[in-house]
Amino acid sequence: MGDNTLGTRFKISSFGESHGKVIGVLIDGTPAGLNFDLEFIQHELDKRKPGQSHLATARKESDKVEVLSGIFKDKTTGAPICLIIKNQSFDSTKYDKFKEFLRPSHVDYVSIKKYGGFADYRGSGRFSGRITAGFVMAGAIAKLILNKFNIFTFAYTESIGKITDPTEYSEDNFEQLVKIREKSLVKSLNAKLSIKMENEIESVKNLKDSVGGSIKCVVKNIPPGIGGPVFNSLEAKISRAIFAIPAIKGIEFGAGFKVANMKGSEHNDPWIIKNGEISTLKNDSGGIIGGISTGMPITLRVAIKPTASIGMRQKTVNFRTMKETEIELEGDHDPCIVPRAVVVVESILAIVFLDQLLIEGKIPSVLEN
Amino acid sequence: MGDNTLGTRFKISSFGESHGKVIGVLIDGTPAGLNFDLEFIQHELDKRKPGQSHLATARKESDKVEVLSGIFKDKTTGAPICLIIKNQSFDSTKYDKFKEFLRPSHVDYVSIKKYGGFADYRGSGRFSGRITAGFVMAGAIAKLILNKFNIFTFAYTESIGKITDPTEYSEDNFEQLVKIREKSLVKSLNAKLSIKMENEIESVKNLKDSVGGSIKCVVKNIPPGIGGPVFNSLEAKISRAIFAIPAIKGIEFGAGFKVANMKGSEHNDPWIIKNGEISTLKNDSGGIIGGISTGMPITLRVAIKPTASIGMRQKTVNFRTMKETEIELEGDHDPCIVPRAVVVVESILAIVFLDQLLIEGKIPSVLEN
Amino acid sequence: MGDNTLGTRFKISSFGESHGKVIGVLIDGTPAGLNFDLEFIQHELDKRKPGQSHLATARKESDKVEVLSGIFKDKTTGAPICLIIKNQSFDSTKYDKFKEFLRPSHVDYVSIKKYGGFADYRGSGRFSGRITAGFVMAGAIAKLILNKFNIFTFAYTESIGKITDPTEYSEDNFEQLVKIREKSLVKSLNAKLSIKMENEIESVKNLKDSVGGSIKCVVKNIPPGIGGPVFNSLEAKISRAIFAIPAIKGIEFGAGFKVANMKGSEHNDPWIIKNGEISTLKNDSGGIIGGISTGMPITLRVAIKPTASIGMRQKTVNFRTMKETEIELEGDHDPCIVPRAVVVVESILAIVFLDQLLIEGKIPSVLEN
Amino acid sequence: MGDNTLGTRFKISSFGESHGKVIGVLIDGTPAGLNFDLEFIQHELDKRKPGQSHLATARKESDKVEVLSGIFKDKTTGAPICLIIKNQSFDSTKYDKFKEFLRPSHVDYVSIKKYGGFADYRGSGRFSGRITAGFVMAGAIAKLILNKFNIFTFAYTESIGKITDPTEYSEDNFEQLVKIREKSLVKSLNAKLSIKMENEIESVKNLKDSVGGSIKCVVKNIPPGIGGPVFNSLEAKISRAIFAIPAIKGIEFGAGFKVANMKGSEHNDPWIIKNGEISTLKNDSGGIIGGISTGMPITLRVAIKPTASIGMRQKTVNFRTMKETEIELEGDHDPCIVPRAVVVVESILAIVFLDQLLIEGKIPSVLEN
Repeated sequence: MGDNTLGTRFKISSFGESHGKVIGVLIDGTPAGLNFDLEFIQHELDKRKPGQSHLATARKESDKVEVLSGIFKDKTTGAPICLIIKNQSFDSTKYDKFKEFLRPSHVDYVSIKKYGGFADYRGSGRFSGRITAGFVMAGAIAKLILNKFNIFTFAYTESIGKITDPTEYSEDNFEQLVKIREKSLVKSLNAKLSIKMENEIESVKNLKDSVGGSIKCVVKNIPPGIGGPVFNSLEAKISRAIFAIPAIKGIEFGAGFKVANMKGSEHNDPWIIKNGEISTLKNDSGGIIGGISTGMPITLRVAIKPTASIGMRQKTVNFRTMKETEIELEGDHDPCIVPRAVVVVESILAIVFLDQLLIEGKIPSVLEN
Repeated sequence: MGDNTLGTRFKISSFGESHGKVIGVLIDGTPAGLNFDLEFIQHELDKRKPGQSHLATARKESDKVEVLSGIFKDKTTGAPICLIIKNQSFDSTKYDKFKEFLRPSHVDYVSIKKYGGFADYRGSGRFSGRITAGFVMAGAIAKLILNKFNIFTFAYTESIGKITDPTEYSEDNFEQLVKIREKSLVKSLNAKLSIKMENEIESVKNLKDSVGGSIKCVVKNIPPGIGGPVFNSLEAKISRAIFAIPAIKGIEFGAGFKVANMKGSEHNDPWIIKNGEISTLKNDSGGIIGGISTGMPITLRVAIKPTASIGMRQKTVNFRTMKETEIELEGDHDPCIVPRAVVVVESILAIVFLDQLLIEGKIPSVLEN
Repeated sequence: MGDNTLGTRFKISSFGESHGKVIGVLIDGTPAGLNFDLEFIQHELDKRKPGQSHLATARKESDKVEVLSGIFKDKTTGAPICLIIKNQSFDSTKYDKFKEFLRPSHVDYVSIKKYGGFADYRGSGRFSGRITAGFVMAGAIAKLILNKFNIFTFAYTESIGKITDPTEYSEDNFEQLVKIREKSLVKSLNAKLSIKMENEIESVKNLKDSVGGSIKCVVKNIPPGIGGPVFNSLEAKISRAIFAIPAIKGIEFGAGFKVANMKGSEHNDPWIIKNGEISTLKNDSGGIIGGISTGMPITLRVAIKPTASIGMRQKTVNFRTMKETEIELEGDHDPCIVPRAVVVVESILAIVFLDQLLIEGKIPSVLEN
Repeated sequence: MGDNTLGTRFKISSFGESHGKVIGVLIDGTPAGLNFDLEFIQHELDKRKPGQSHLATARKESDKVEVLSGIFKDKTTGAPICLIIKNQSFDSTKYDKFKEFLRPSHVDYVSIKKYGGFADYRGSGRFSGRITAGFVMAGAIAKLILNKFNIFTFAYTESIGKITDPTEYSEDNFEQLVKIREKSLVKSLNAKLSIKMENEIESVKNLKDSVGGSIKCVVKNIPPGIGGPVFNSLEAKISRAIFAIPAIKGIEFGAGFKVANMKGSEHNDPWIIKNGEISTLKNDSGGIIGGISTGMPITLRVAIKPTASIGMRQKTVNFRTMKETEIELEGDHDPCIVPRAVVVVESILAIVFLDQLLIEGKIPSVLEN
């Protein structure tokens, strides 16, 4: 209750339901004077739109962004910006039965417990991955601002099921990696493995099953000294926001879980001088020490679970009769949401960092053009 | 800045520095009428106290808790509770040089960037693991309340370096596992592997090196329906708090990063009827679906990096001369902080869940005794 | 920036501009299961609609409420509710000159200073009293819930210019007072003085001038024990919300400013037994002692300044030339906003008290019907 | 519950009780690098100390400030600053009876309703005016910072009972007014009326009664453009903080309640050019238009009720027997708290404005010296 809002200075509030009238986001705290590039926002939205390829749900949605407030003469005004996309796919009759049959690893049960059976259950309502379209719209605005300050968030698919791409982000061939990712249906940085990942998705789709994966992300050019110790830590702020994305079950920074089996002499990143500036020899810290940015790229990795909605027959419970039973779900579900989640992860990171930079007074509240 | 506070209804604010006068915590929102069990709080504090064994730093601190406010006639009043421990170990002369020599993976550099060189650098000041004594004091109060409602947080060491204990928490032999953990110097659930873990720590200590590890945690008896979608997700709230503990570089819930290589048919937890109640056949979801508790145990795992402070010679930079150099750190440092972090993880979880249960009106603001 | 939101558990976020596409409000934290009475919301909105009588601005707006999210099967779901009204009056050409001529006691200057000239200046944009339509929509939902618990907020016009109505709210003839107010064009509790107040407004209107006034408000049936000392005080929470209404320049509780010239023996409200319950002989405390409700009616009074937009010739400055000059404003402005502000004050109070009662666990998050 | 905190970037948390161990304040968000002038803080505290003259309570307290955290080498570090004063007057036996006899206009009843009888009732516990010592300590730090930017808060007694001083704050003889106030036992700007006010207080003291009064305050040199519309309004932020001071029952800005009987042509402040800068001919707006500072002095006025604790016989209720009865209070109570409240009002205003200026990026988080 009362907690659909993220951020302090750049504050986003999510609203809408999967099969309601709209998906929306209210954005409060955007600096005034930003050229409001609606095409860029649409371009970002298109990256997570359903039906982009045969690998995704066939749900038909145009996802055209509409502006309700906050823009005047094509610029931000400093007032709250309300953006919506209208839902078009309304055939929700198939969902009526989930009031009764609890889908495995789905929200039917917890939703009843929390909302007393009053929640909109069509297409999972508020729990739908469709909600993240709002994150992408807000994230696009955050990116427009961050990019003016040469800060970029960049995410890509590391693995789909058993196919893992060992390619690391690298400053040197960044432009090339962006291009490869743009061409990859699964948002991979490796053209060959991209095909294998696509095959992996198709194979689970054919089995009416689903598959998980992992996404890596880097944030470039955050200056040193951002964040803080204790509850102000960048890891705390990032993870709190990232876990708003449905299906994420783990997050790690820098060397991540590998640190458990590392020695200090191995993990420590020696400070060096590079081009006359302080830098580190390697970046096992993921660009964050003591909760504060080091000036090195912020690196993190998230795990995304396989879509809970699968067509295969599954054991479950009928909530009305309180008897165990079986269920087969119809409908167009993504066999793997990893490719569509890549832009969502990027967006959330852009939102978190813009908020933090505004809080710390590093970005002015009126922008020069 | 301004962000040393966690929580909404049960709000804790951390203060103090490693080598300042005190380490403290201000706790706002404790229900009135709780029997204030000072001995229990001290007992919890003793679990993270330095110098408990030869495996930990030899720093001498009695860590005796003192109450400054909020308690009247041995009960909570509903007013803010201020608790402190006084620092006794004040030999901080050895820290003066870190104004100049940047310790690898240490906060010297980021602290200068953030606080302009004015931060208290003695023993890492606000960045010290010693700050977590405040979390333990607040967590102890949270535990006292949660326990009245039969809710428990339980953490234990899963691995130290390459030694990993496969023991899973189990409802059936919980009491026994608690006892094993109490006897283990490293807070392990396996008496044999505990010895191996101790040896692992001793061996890195002898090399003037350090080692990381991992901690597992379970929260028992959270009722179904707690938390929410989007930014209210339990994973979001837990991770935001957990990353306030220095040295944690990763967190995962339920099956965690393993989900990346799982099929939906494999990962989904079928709903079942158990003793006439809704339950799940397994718990790969970690007790959380759609950000909301399922009624199953909440399970999570965190990775702890090796202590950055090591005695071995390391490469680094002299910040004054801006030249690369080498450094050897003196002083008593924990070769592995995992054993002392176990109670800290438990405490943070107790704080997060008490806050959430109060927000959702599941725990009254005046307690019956 | 980032501060168009009020409340913790029942959280409202305001958006939209006077001459933008919509005026809207996003409401987060409404309990699930409430019958969503759209007609009631519309009825409330109609009370502040422009053009209700010859005493108000002639701006033509139908102010029809539209629901974008949060309602399913005519009930609240617990999800965020987004409500909008579309603006219809778009002739904003007359506002272009205020980029240059600073209207006296108007926001032209401060807006330029804050938003660098990027703010939407048409009809005062975000500063317009039209924004309060959002407060009324959210307040209507709050009222629907509070009324289920027999709690009511009731406001009325005390004075318009020099015409003051000494009638006090009274429990005994409450129903009758409501009826008189409904018939009064100026929302007065006194039919005769209502005519005088109308005349007062007409006379300033004819002079192309405007006039201020005062509103009294009472909140009935708040149970004792709500609120708290220090920053949790009801006076603090109420005043913080009330001053979001443009044009309010003062607020007082109970005996208000009269306390400055009172003795303790005179001001103190003796406790008495009434119908077997604790009560007070009189209510100079305005139902609040130590920031906490006493169980007596909460009473307060606010002062509303005369509309800054007047047709009379006024001295001012040309911001471009930085020379002093004169200005005559065209357009339909309310000669007195007091009558239309009455429902806004009621709405804000309903929002504040619902939020507080939810925070304190006095209203459940799922409503029985 | 959980709401003893004020502010966002400069955040103060109040703790302690009237007859507990300490009165304290935790201050989070102070910029680093400020010379920590302990003498100034003590000097400010001394202005509200009990027992300053025969006009105040005779309670003996030295109110010596102690620093627990956040200061290093006599400068702020950016870490939370914890300040306490120790309570010395512990004779609290006289308060035991108020568990039973409800003092008129006192918190006994509401406290029982809220805290179930567990609150510390000695000397009103958390509700005591003594809590405001924490506001003064935090306010002193805020003043030290604001003064570096030439911003000042200045409050003074306008009236005590029926004695009202018409003197207005004036830029021209500001230094002189400060001096007069310093010499006045009642913090008046008029030496003659000061004597009359003292007499007024003495006369009610002799009658075992108390008396109220009013305080005026001005904030100098706030730049134009600070604050915002809707919930960000300066009036909203100021009033929310001011009402944390016990005994305040009303607040007004600029012309205040007088606006109710003003015409627009009378109330509007014409813009003028003064020394080549935008200014206003008069300041009925109190330096705030549309919730935003105009650059003119911020002016406000608050009403303070007579002390509820009086020695005269009063009617009341025995809560145990639920019978009406009479009560005579012993003890040293301030017959008028207005003089001691002057510095508290100033302090709260300093806190609010420093917070707002930090939020808006107008004051850096590391100060140059």
